[in-house]
Amino acid sequence: MSEISTRHQTGAPQNLEQRFAARAAGMQPSEIRALFAVASRPEIVSLAGGMPNLSALPMKMMASVVNDLILTNGTEALQYGSGQGHPKLREQICEVMALEGIRAHPEDVVVTTGSQQALDLISRIFIDPGDVVLVEAPSYVGALGTFHQYQASVVHVSMDNDGLIPDALRDAIKTTRAAGRKIKFLYLIPNYQNPTGVLLPADRRTEILDICRKEEIFVVEDNPYGLLGFDRPSPNAMRAEDSENVIYLGSFSKTIASGLRVGWALVPPSLKDKLVIASESSILCPSNFSQMTISNYLADQPWRDQIASFCELYKVRRDAMLQALEEHFPASATWTKPGGGFYVWVNLPPEIDTKLLVPKAIVAKVAYVPGTAFYADGLGSWQLRLSFCHPTPERIHQGVAALGGVIKQEIERRSSNKLN
Amino acid sequence: MSEISTRHQTGAPQNLEQRFAARAAGMQPSEIRALFAVASRPEIVSLAGGMPNLSALPMKMMASVVNDLILTNGTEALQYGSGQGHPKLREQICEVMALEGIRAHPEDVVVTTGSQQALDLISRIFIDPGDVVLVEAPSYVGALGTFHQYQASVVHVSMDNDGLIPDALRDAIKTTRAAGRKIKFLYLIPNYQNPTGVLLPADRRTEILDICRKEEIFVVEDNPYGLLGFDRPSPNAMRAEDSENVIYLGSFSKTIASGLRVGWALVPPSLKDKLVIASESSILCPSNFSQMTISNYLADQPWRDQIASFCELYKVRRDAMLQALEEHFPASATWTKPGGGFYVWVNLPPEIDTKLLVPKAIVAKVAYVPGTAFYADGLGSWQLRLSFCHPTPERIHQGVAALGGVIKQEIERRSSNKLN
Repeated sequence: MSEISTRHQTGAPQNLEQRFAARAAGMQPSEIRALFAVASRPEIVSLAGGMPNLSALPMKMMASVVNDLILTNGTEALQYGSGQGHPKLREQICEVMALEGIRAHPEDVVVTTGSQQALDLISRIFIDPGDVVLVEAPSYVGALGTFHQYQASVVHVSMDNDGLIPDALRDAIKTTRAAGRKIKFLYLIPNYQNPTGVLLPADRRTEILDICRKEEIFVVEDNPYGLLGFDRPSPNAMRAEDSENVIYLGSFSKTIASGLRVGWALVPPSLKDKLVIASESSILCPSNFSQMTISNYLADQPWRDQIASFCELYKVRRDAMLQALEEHFPASATWTKPGGGFYVWVNLPPEIDTKLLVPKAIVAKVAYVPGTAFYADGLGSWQLRLSFCHPTPERIHQGVAALGGVIKQEIERRSSNKLN
Repeated sequence: MSEISTRHQTGAPQNLEQRFAARAAGMQPSEIRALFAVASRPEIVSLAGGMPNLSALPMKMMASVVNDLILTNGTEALQYGSGQGHPKLREQICEVMALEGIRAHPEDVVVTTGSQQALDLISRIFIDPGDVVLVEAPSYVGALGTFHQYQASVVHVSMDNDGLIPDALRDAIKTTRAAGRKIKFLYLIPNYQNPTGVLLPADRRTEILDICRKEEIFVVEDNPYGLLGFDRPSPNAMRAEDSENVIYLGSFSKTIASGLRVGWALVPPSLKDKLVIASESSILCPSNFSQMTISNYLADQPWRDQIASFCELYKVRRDAMLQALEEHFPASATWTKPGGGFYVWVNLPPEIDTKLLVPKAIVAKVAYVPGTAFYADGLGSWQLRLSFCHPTPERIHQGVAALGGVIKQEIERRSSNKLN
C-alpha cells in the first residue's frame, strides 16, 4: 500500500454549511458512535452492541452453500438483479413469515439491504419535514436516526411491561392532531422490543390495529426478533391480522447472518411500486450474491433447527444476565425479563445519570448504552440497555457484576454527598 | 410453497396520495421498466441493458475465494461491519484508484451498496427541493432518477464528441444563477460516458475543474468505466487533479461483479462524517460478505489481468457493433465511436421518434433504449443508446442488422408519406 499518500487534511470550505441541504444539519456524529469504538476493545465486556452471536452457525455448511452457489449459478449470483428482489427468495420469505401467521404473496415483498433500508424507504415515501411519526418510548436508535434524517417530528407513546399502551396511543393521536399536525405512521417492534425486550400481547395487538385502522394511520411493524422467543412462540405478527394497514419489516440479520445485509418489507399492494422505485433510486437492486446465498441456505439447510439453536444460545445468555442482575444490581434498580430477543432494559434511581456513568463503567471494563439514546426527546437519563446476545455467559456475569459495582458506588456517593 | 395465498388485491385507500410525502409524487414506474422486461426474453437481442458480461470471470476461482473467506473468516464476513466500510477494502480501493492517478487516504473512502447508493447519499446531503444539479446532455438514467427523487431541478449542459463543453458549462452556470437558482453540483461521467460512450480529454478536465472550483460548485465524478479503455489508457481521473472540490464515485460492478453491489465514494475530508451518517441511516453498514469477497479477490487474484480480459472481451463487441452499424444503418444516421465502456450513442434523422419505434424493433427481435430516457427535459427523441457489453459479437451483428432494417423502413415510410 506504498502508493497511498498521507491524508491531506484541508479545512472545510468557509461557506460549506450553506451548501448542504437543510436535512444535513441533523447529520451529526452521535455519542454512541464513540462508545461503540471503545466497547469493541477486547478487554471490555460489551453489553452495548446488538451484534448477533454467530458461534451457533456452522461455517463449513455456509462455505459449502456459497461455493455451490457460485459454481452452479455464478453468472446470476454475480450479476445485477431485480430491483424488487430475487423472485425465489421472495417466495421463501413468505414461507418464513407464515411461521408467524402471515399469509402473503411474493409480489408484495420487496427485498432490502437489511431492514434498515426498508425503514429508510418507508420514510422516504411518507415523511415530509415536520410530519409526525409515533414510536414507542423508548425505541430503536436506528429508526430514530432515520426519522430524524427525513426531518420527522417523533412523538413517543408510553409503554409498560406489556409494550405500547393503547390508551396512550389514543391520547397521542388526539393531542398531535389537536395541534394541527399530520401523523404518518406508528412505528413499533412488537416482539422482544429493542431496547426494552418486552412483548406486546395478542389482545393489545388487536386493539392497536383497530385504533390505527380507524384513524387511518399506517402501522410499521418491525420484527427482527419474532422467531427468537425462548420460552414460548411469539403471538402472530400484527400483519397476520391486517394486510391493508400494516407495513411489515423483516430481516435475516438475527436468524441467519447480519453480514449478508438482507431484510425485506411486506407492503399493501398500493405501496409496492413506490417502494421498488425508491429502492432502485437508492441502490439499483439488492445483492443477488447475498440473496441467493440465503435462498440456497433456506432451500437446502435445516434452517428451522438452526433458529432453534440460536434460541438456545441466546436463552442461556438471557438467563445468565437475569441471574447476574439479581446478584449484583442494587435493590433500587428494576429491569425487564425478556422472553426472547437480545435486550434487557434497566431502570435506576432517577438521580443516576447513565450517560455520565459510562466513563466509570469503561474503567471497570464494561460497556452499555445509556437510555437517552433511545428517545428523541432527551428522556431516559436514569435508564440503560444491556445486550446479552454476544458475550459468553461468563463474560456476561463478569460485566454485570462490574456494572453493578459501579452503580452501587454511584448511589453511595450521591447519598453520602447528600448527608454532608 | 403451498401456504402462500393468492394475492389479496385491494384497492388503494381513497386518500392515499395525500398521505405520501411530496417527493413520492415523482415515484412513477418509468417506460424503460417495461422495456427491460421484454428485452430479457431470450429471443430478443438486447442492446438495451448495461449488464456486465461475466463470461470472462472464472467461476471456479470466485467460488474458491468465497469458500476460503467463510472458512477462514466467516464470523467477520457474516457479521455487521463498519458504516464507513471494511478498513482493508478501503485501503485496496486506494490502490485501485491509484491506477488513474488518484492519491487518496482510506479514511476518506466510504464504501456503498453500488455507486448508486453513493449518488443517493450525495443527493441526500446536498439537495433541497428546487436546487439545481448540472448534468451532461444526455446523462445516466439512474442518476436522473435519484436527482428527481430528491426534487432537484436538472439543468443539462451540452456535449460534443469530446464530452462536456466548458463554454456551455460557463453559460449554464451564468444563466442558472441569473435566474436566482442555487447550483449544488456538477455530475458527470468523464470516461466512456453513459449513454454516449465519449471520453472527456485531459485539457477539458482541467478547464472544467477550474470553472467549478472558481464558482464553488462541487464536481461529482462518476467513474464506473475508467479502467475499461480498449485502445489506450484513460486520462487521469479528475479527482487526481483536485482533492478538495471533487467527489469521486467508483464501482466494482464493471471490473469484478455487479451482483456483489460494492461501490464507493472518495470525498473531501469535510464531507466524510455526513456521508457515513447518511449511509448508516440508510443501510446501517455495507455487506461485510460482499466487501470481504472483493477484498480477498483483490489480495489473492491477478485482478489487473482480469480487467485486461474484460477489456478484450468488450473491445471485440465494440468492434462488432461499429462494423455492424457501418453495414446496416442508413447513411443519415451518425454514432459515437467509443474507446471503451459499454455504449454507442446513435443520432437518427430528427423526424424519427425512437420511442415510437421500440415496438417495431421488438417485433424484429431487438431492443435498445430510446434517447429521451437520458434527458430530464424531453429531448433525445431521435436518439438512442446501444449497449455492446452483453451479447455475443454474432448476436450484436444480428441485432444491429435487424434494427437497421427497422430504421430504414421507417425512414422510407416517412418519405413516401411525404410524397403522397
